[in-house]
Amino acid sequence: MQFRNPEAVARLKADFDRQGAMASMGISVADVTPGRVVLTMPFSAAFTQHHGFMHAGVITTAMDSACGFAAFTLMDADAEVLTVEFKSNFMSPAAGQSFRFEGEVIKAGRTLTFTQGRAIALDDGTQKTVATMTATMMAVRGKTG
Amino acid sequence: MQFRNPEAVARLKADFDRQGAMASMGISVADVTPGRVVLTMPFSAAFTQHHGFMHAGVITTAMDSACGFAAFTLMDADAEVLTVEFKSNFMSPAAGQSFRFEGEVIKAGRTLTFTQGRAIALDDGTQKTVATMTATMMAVRGKTG
Amino acid sequence: MQFRNPEAVARLKADFDRQGAMASMGISVADVTPGRVVLTMPFSAAFTQHHGFMHAGVITTAMDSACGFAAFTLMDADAEVLTVEFKSNFMSPAAGQSFRFEGEVIKAGRTLTFTQGRAIALDDGTQKTVATMTATMMAVRGKTG
Amino acid sequence: MQFRNPEAVARLKADFDRQGAMASMGISVADVTPGRVVLTMPFSAAFTQHHGFMHAGVITTAMDSACGFAAFTLMDADAEVLTVEFKSNFMSPAAGQSFRFEGEVIKAGRTLTFTQGRAIALDDGTQKTVATMTATMMAVRGKTG
Repeated sequence: MQFRNPEAVARLKADFDRQGAMASMGISVADVTPGRVVLTMPFSAAFTQHHGFMHAGVITTAMDSACGFAAFTLMDADAEVLTVEFKSNFMSPAAGQSFRFEGEVIKAGRTLTFTQGRAIALDDGTQKTVATMTATMMAVRGKTG
Repeated sequence: MQFRNPEAVARLKADFDRQGAMASMGISVADVTPGRVVLTMPFSAAFTQHHGFMHAGVITTAMDSACGFAAFTLMDADAEVLTVEFKSNFMSPAAGQSFRFEGEVIKAGRTLTFTQGRAIALDDGTQKTVATMTATMMAVRGKTG
Repeated sequence: MQFRNPEAVARLKADFDRQGAMASMGISVADVTPGRVVLTMPFSAAFTQHHGFMHAGVITTAMDSACGFAAFTLMDADAEVLTVEFKSNFMSPAAGQSFRFEGEVIKAGRTLTFTQGRAIALDDGTQKTVATMTATMMAVRGKTG
Repeated sequence: MQFRNPEAVARLKADFDRQGAMASMGISVADVTPGRVVLTMPFSAAFTQHHGFMHAGVITTAMDSACGFAAFTLMDADAEVLTVEFKSNFMSPAAGQSFRFEGEVIKAGRTLTFTQGRAIALDDGTQKTVATMTATMMAVRGKTG
C-alpha cells in the first residue's frame, strides 16, 4: 500500500490538530504509514468512568480517530473521511499508565473503506489489548472541510 | 418495568458524579425512569472533530453512559454494570446547540442486558437524530466498585 | 415516504424470487410498503442449531433480506442494493411455529441507507422478539444485476 | 491455549452434526484446534442472493458457527455455547467455487468469550477475504442441551 496523495501525512496532521477532542483528551499521533495510524494517550483522571478506568467511550474516540485517519491515508487528495459506523468490544478494564491505539485498513474502496482498530494498555512494561473495533469509513468528495 | 433496588436513582447519580468523563464533557443527567435514562450536553468546541462537529466518539461516550445507566436501573442492588460491546451508526453530522442522549433497555437479563440508544441534536427548536447505538451490558457481582 | 421507482414492488418481488436462499429456507414476502418490508418463515428442522432452535445465522439471513429490500424500496430505478455490514443481537432462543421479520429504513441516503430489523417468534398466538439487527445498505449504480 | 474438556472435539462434532443448518447448507468441519475452528462449504446455487453470489446471511451463518465452536473448544465440560451478538462486514461479493470460514478466540472468559471470524472465497487457486465477523459468545451452564 502507498499514499495516493503526496500530502497525506501533512493533511492528516493538520486535520488531527483541528480536532478539539484529541487535544482535550491528550491524544497524539505516534506513527503514520500507508493504511495504518498509531495514536497514544496517557492515563487521564479527567476521562474515567466511575471505577477509575478510562471510559469505554474515550477509548472508542481514540480508536475511531486511528481508524478514520488510517482510511484517510489511502484516499484521493479531494476526499474527506467520515465515520459511517463502528463496533467496539471491551475485553478488559482500560487500566494503565498509558494507551496505544492502532487503526489499520482491511479493504480500501473508492467510496467505503473497512478498518479495524485496537486499544492496548501499557503498564510498567506490560501490554494488554483492552478493546477492539471494526469501523466503516466513507470518502466524501466535493465539499470543503 | 420498575426499579429492583430502591436506591437505584441515588446510586446511579453517585456513580455518574464519579465519572470524570461526564464532568469533563459537560454531560448531565436529565431524566431517570426504570429502564430508561436521558442525558444532555451542550455543544462544546473542546470535543469536536476537524470539521467542527462533535466527535463521533464523544457522541458515543454519552450514548454508552445513557445505555449503561439504563441497564443499571433494572439490576439488583449488588450489581455493577460493565459495557461488553456497542455499535454506533452515524446518520448526520453532530451539529447543534445541544444534544440529548436516550438510552433504554430492550431486554433485561440476570447477566446480560440489551439496550439501545440514540443521540438527538437540538438546534433552534428543531430536533434531529444524528446517531444510534445498540449495546450489550453485563451485571458484575461480588466486586467492590 | 414513498416509492421513488413506480416498479419498486414488482422489481423487489422479482429479485426476491431470484434469491435461492429465500426459497430454500421457505421465506416469503408478507408485506411491502415504502421503507418497510415484512417477511415470514415457518419453523424448519432443516435450519436449526444443535438445540433445535432456528440457527442465529438463518434468523439473520431473513432480517438481512428484510432490511435490504426495505432500503431498496426507497432507491432510484437504476440502483441495486448491497449489504455493507450488519449487527445482530440475540435476546431469546428462536423457538416458535413461525417467524416474522420486519425491516425498516431509519435514514435513506443517495449512497448509504441505514436500516433496522427484528425477528419475532410466533407460537400459539403469542409473539416474542428474539433478535434485532442494525444494517447499513449501499446503492450500487451502473452495473447490471 | 489448550482444551479444558478432554472430550471437546468429540462433543463439538456431535453438536455440529445435530445442526440441521450445517447439513442443509453443505458446511463441514475442516479443522479444530484449541480456540480455533475452520469450516468449509462448496458454492451452492440453493443459497444465493439475487445476483448469484452466496447470500450474506449464509456466509454469516457459517462464520457464526465457526466462532461459536471456537469458543466452545475453550469452555468447561458443563458449558453450552450461545451467540450473544455478532457483526459482519462484507468486503466483496461472495463469489467462488468454495469457501473457508475461520473462527478464533480473542479473549476467553468464564461467562463471555470474544471471537473473530472471516470468510475466504476460493476460486481456481486464488483466495480472497469476502467478509469478517466479530462475535460475543456466552457459556450457559446447568441446562441440558
